[in-house]
Amino acid sequence: MSMQDTDIDQRFSLARSIAEEAGRLALDYFENRGSLVIETKRDLQDVVSIADRNVETLIRDRVAATFPRDGFLGEEFGHVEGSSGFTWVVDPIDGTAPFVNGMPTWCVSIAVLRGGVPVVGVVHVPCDDELYAAAAGRGASLNGKPLTLDPTRTIQNAMTGIGCNTYVAPERVGQIIAGLLGIGGNFIRNGSGALMLAYVAAGRLVGYYEPFMRAWDCMAGYCLVKEAGGDYLPFPVEGEALLGGHPVLASNLSAYSELLALHQG
Amino acid sequence: MSMQDTDIDQRFSLARSIAEEAGRLALDYFENRGSLVIETKRDLQDVVSIADRNVETLIRDRVAATFPRDGFLGEEFGHVEGSSGFTWVVDPIDGTAPFVNGMPTWCVSIAVLRGGVPVVGVVHVPCDDELYAAAAGRGASLNGKPLTLDPTRTIQNAMTGIGCNTYVAPERVGQIIAGLLGIGGNFIRNGSGALMLAYVAAGRLVGYYEPFMRAWDCMAGYCLVKEAGGDYLPFPVEGEALLGGHPVLASNLSAYSELLALHQG
Repeated sequence: MSMQDTDIDQRFSLARSIAEEAGRLALDYFENRGSLVIETKRDLQDVVSIADRNVETLIRDRVAATFPRDGFLGEEFGHVEGSSGFTWVVDPIDGTAPFVNGMPTWCVSIAVLRGGVPVVGVVHVPCDDELYAAAAGRGASLNGKPLTLDPTRTIQNAMTGIGCNTYVAPERVGQIIAGLLGIGGNFIRNGSGALMLAYVAAGRLVGYYEPFMRAWDCMAGYCLVKEAGGDYLPFPVEGEALLGGHPVLASNLSAYSELLALHQG
Repeated sequence: MSMQDTDIDQRFSLARSIAEEAGRLALDYFENRGSLVIETKRDLQDVVSIADRNVETLIRDRVAATFPRDGFLGEEFGHVEGSSGFTWVVDPIDGTAPFVNGMPTWCVSIAVLRGGVPVVGVVHVPCDDELYAAAAGRGASLNGKPLTLDPTRTIQNAMTGIGCNTYVAPERVGQIIAGLLGIGGNFIRNGSGALMLAYVAAGRLVGYYEPFMRAWDCMAGYCLVKEAGGDYLPFPVEGEALLGGHPVLASNLSAYSELLALHQG
């Protein structure tokens, strides 16, 4: 095994164990959410709590303890550059709105980038006791069971995940959904983009599209979808682009061109 | 206790026990769904399997054994009129698309109508081990814990459930979603209308709207929302109307007028 392989394998192993530990901490907050103080960020629909911050801090501390030279980008506390060539990209609780409203569709999302490419992707869904895990060249799995996309699933005979937020005009969101339904598709929006991307890797959704998403929402899912046999629209990572919002699209190969047309339409 | 009360209480008790038994049977099919033959009905997105039919048969048999004079309306096998004044309205698996695609957001929905009004509503969510139960004048509960809506939740600070199907034009669906986002709302669509209505009763969603829904999709949820302190748009039940599709809207009182405007807009 080359040094490079070991570098990825060690981070893959750590990402899985941190995701499980972080998920347990988040689940504890979830089960006691009546006492959480919910704060708003950009608008009333953009919520956060101490749960998000403390789970991110836990993840950041665990990474720093083992890989102090790795970079780290988290939703709550931003970006710290590293010098190892690896950058961890983390959403401590993706789907904070479902979380604070008591719905089970939220997750911990942890990716590791090398050269801007997600080489590790782990999504932990505490309420469903599901751990999605993938690493470059090592395949994707759900609770240890390998995931391989079924080429017979299409936009027309499967469901597609759609996401949005207040950075996207309401009319554009309506247009995307009307466009998807117009070509015989059907949509799901469960409030967590990272989880819907993991569902694409698991074949539960045939694809996922959201016009504006952050790196911490999509990088783990991107690695999962790629390793399950699908493809994704590259997310810009050069310089400040990594910190910005960009279109996110990942799917079974059978659905890619139709979703791309929806994005461009 | 009057005879009338006993009539409802006996059916409420039976509905809960049947919903739990039916949910266990459905969960067994779900966990072995790799061997299910998926059939399509109206279009490729309108799916059904032997699981739906066998779960409905179980529910029908259990009702007939105790209340042979009650009417019964189920999604899969249609309507049998009764003579007792009570009619059971059942969706054995609401959210068949999530079910066959491996997502946990499906449920068993059982309502009992008297005089066209849902006086019992029970929704069982096997994957999350949740039992939502309500009866007229007896309140609503989730796993035994009483549910009471919070008047401070609004369209703008909470999430709203939206449903659709191929009976509704894609452009209309897009218009509804754009309209909801335009007034500062946020939407969820998890693939099960009955479950999203139960979420309204639990305060997880502030309201639910779908332009065209069947009685078996909404009646249990309607009873739940009403008993939790919310309100709903009456569903036509006279004669053949009970078997048709109609707009469904249920919400926290704080959100009702805005959702009604969205429906009428």
